[in-house]
Amino acid sequence: MIVAPQRLSFTEPLPLQGGAQLPAYELVYETYGTLSPARDNAVLICHALNASHHVAGHYTDAHGQPLPKSEGWWHNMVGPGKPVDTNRFFVIGVNNIGSCFGSTGPTHLNPATGQPWGADFPVVTVEDWVNAQARLLDALGIERLAAVMGGSLGGMQALSWTLQYPQRVRHAVIIASAPNLTAENIAFNEVARRAIVTDPDFHGGDYLRHGTKPRRGLRIARMIGHITYLSDDVMNEKFGRRLRPLVEAMRDGDVETAERLAYRYTTQEVEFEIESYLRYQGDKFSEYFDANTYLLITRALDYFDPARAYDGDLSAALARARADFLLVSFSTDWRFSPARSREIVKALLDNRRCVSYCEIDAPHGHDAFLLDDARYHAAVRAYFQHRVAAACRAQE
Amino acid sequence: MIVAPQRLSFTEPLPLQGGAQLPAYELVYETYGTLSPARDNAVLICHALNASHHVAGHYTDAHGQPLPKSEGWWHNMVGPGKPVDTNRFFVIGVNNIGSCFGSTGPTHLNPATGQPWGADFPVVTVEDWVNAQARLLDALGIERLAAVMGGSLGGMQALSWTLQYPQRVRHAVIIASAPNLTAENIAFNEVARRAIVTDPDFHGGDYLRHGTKPRRGLRIARMIGHITYLSDDVMNEKFGRRLRPLVEAMRDGDVETAERLAYRYTTQEVEFEIESYLRYQGDKFSEYFDANTYLLITRALDYFDPARAYDGDLSAALARARADFLLVSFSTDWRFSPARSREIVKALLDNRRCVSYCEIDAPHGHDAFLLDDARYHAAVRAYFQHRVAAACRAQE
Repeated sequence: MIVAPQRLSFTEPLPLQGGAQLPAYELVYETYGTLSPARDNAVLICHALNASHHVAGHYTDAHGQPLPKSEGWWHNMVGPGKPVDTNRFFVIGVNNIGSCFGSTGPTHLNPATGQPWGADFPVVTVEDWVNAQARLLDALGIERLAAVMGGSLGGMQALSWTLQYPQRVRHAVIIASAPNLTAENIAFNEVARRAIVTDPDFHGGDYLRHGTKPRRGLRIARMIGHITYLSDDVMNEKFGRRLRPLVEAMRDGDVETAERLAYRYTTQEVEFEIESYLRYQGDKFSEYFDANTYLLITRALDYFDPARAYDGDLSAALARARADFLLVSFSTDWRFSPARSREIVKALLDNRRCVSYCEIDAPHGHDAFLLDDARYHAAVRAYFQHRVAAACRAQE
Repeated sequence: MIVAPQRLSFTEPLPLQGGAQLPAYELVYETYGTLSPARDNAVLICHALNASHHVAGHYTDAHGQPLPKSEGWWHNMVGPGKPVDTNRFFVIGVNNIGSCFGSTGPTHLNPATGQPWGADFPVVTVEDWVNAQARLLDALGIERLAAVMGGSLGGMQALSWTLQYPQRVRHAVIIASAPNLTAENIAFNEVARRAIVTDPDFHGGDYLRHGTKPRRGLRIARMIGHITYLSDDVMNEKFGRRLRPLVEAMRDGDVETAERLAYRYTTQEVEFEIESYLRYQGDKFSEYFDANTYLLITRALDYFDPARAYDGDLSAALARARADFLLVSFSTDWRFSPARSREIVKALLDNRRCVSYCEIDAPHGHDAFLLDDARYHAAVRAYFQHRVAAACRAQE
């Protein structure tokens, strides 16, 4: 599947939950499949921290050939014949405001100053993103979604859709998500933010004007993130206590060296394979991700809490929802544990919503929502085939 | 109980596991209680990352008055009438080499250069610490310990004592510890180290010569540490999603303000109480802790792995032990989980050692080993009264 991003400009300012408003802005998005004549087969995919509108398919080079490694972040989930089947559904991936992957964000110019927004970019929330997404649907002529779907922070957007626009969502698919962050979740976000903000290259958020980037802080932020995305078990299986040079020697078939190799006794150099992995992930991330975007998106996570206006009563908060729901959680996900998904399930059942819930016994921790897992994909496939598609047919 | 630290100089170089040797060095230690004429009631307490020889009792001011807040780090465990009763036992607290609390470490002068050791301080391991502690016992005329005891990294030292000096340990009390670190444990250590080492004020470890300190890195390291010391549950209970200004307003009885207060929508300022707590802990730590010491001690944690020389067979590794054992773990400790303590228990039972094991249902996570918990303290008290004291009497 060959795809290309599209771009839409919005001239009406977007009022934000924080009190500010975003003047003229742009949204970058992609679509896969064909919108039905009845315009009733649209599925909106919401992205999490480190993702974008590029959900599925490949980009092409100048000769129209698929670019290697250009597949979208949910390529295994969305596409022709995939669990979210683009032969049946018209799927929309949209990049959120505040991102560094195309839609208006802190690296763009602030029309009021002619300088990059930087730290002055207004705080955006899950609710703001949903409002912006709703305007995109207006522009595309889609009144009602067959489904809204997302994992992690994307799941929060899907949940918020059912509360902000209850009449516009037929189904919500919420994967590895939570009704809000715990203190520990916020704590991890805060450490990552402090690492970024106290990096001398951050310059109060105006690093672009200083021709630099807070790479050290971004590296630390990403390393922390990676630890929380994986389960303890999968880390032990993938890396264990293996030494880095040992792994290299064995890869070269040099068993003699491998056997001779032992601790090198160093405090600053890489000793264990897990260290090398984290450093690599941190380095890579620090090259392409924007620091102000990291602050904005982690804050959107922190702030999301639909029960807050109801004194913490999630059942009361979800009373507005009209959609049917599929929730999926993963047994080893300690960032957004199954217990958090079950809170949402319970609150929906309290409101007599129609809810399917799958708790998948998977070893991969939070990352599982992005990985191939036969039972997980089968559950999503079945839900889309039997429930979401049926709802479209019923309207036909 | 009024106490004062003592200091002993050792002129014989200490050979280190990493291949280097430490020339003349000093150990700072404290003792509580009285050594019996038979010299058979000595209990050695080993410290963890952020602790020292000052286990119990108070220091005094110039007028001999107890200094407020000067009590030792295990004050609730060690003292007259406490679980480790200094009316009965002669308790020794010793500061480890590489520390920044008195014993020879990276802030001290390297005799070869006349400059602070800094990053040139040799890597030290749990085994090296135990060897240094054994020399201290030699100097104090103690051939055999009634018990060696420690929590977390201190528990690793206690376990290593039973392997390095099996004849010199009657009982080992190992609390909230593990036979080695998991990949996830190492990963958290590595992120903390990267935060320190990449702080521009680190200067490759020679920050003292530059008249500075890598405070930013130390703050991040401490914040990460604090998250892993606490359980998710206790964090939710202590902090939850409470907002910082809200807490302040309510503390002042200003309910009207508290009710008015809501999210302030800020990416860089404190919003949640948990953020304020972590920042405070990080700031405090960065003022008194030495960065090179942090690197050394986390590496000692990473390297400890007695089963390593036995192809990972912990039962084979522990075959040398001759002591009796008490192990304690805490249900919500996800840093050193009960499963890790049970690995040690199983390996000891495989060797037909006499082992008592308590898994305490406590909400506080890893921190529980430092806190008052009636069942935990009762178990340690009973073990010392009935088992450790009996062993002393049997020798009398």
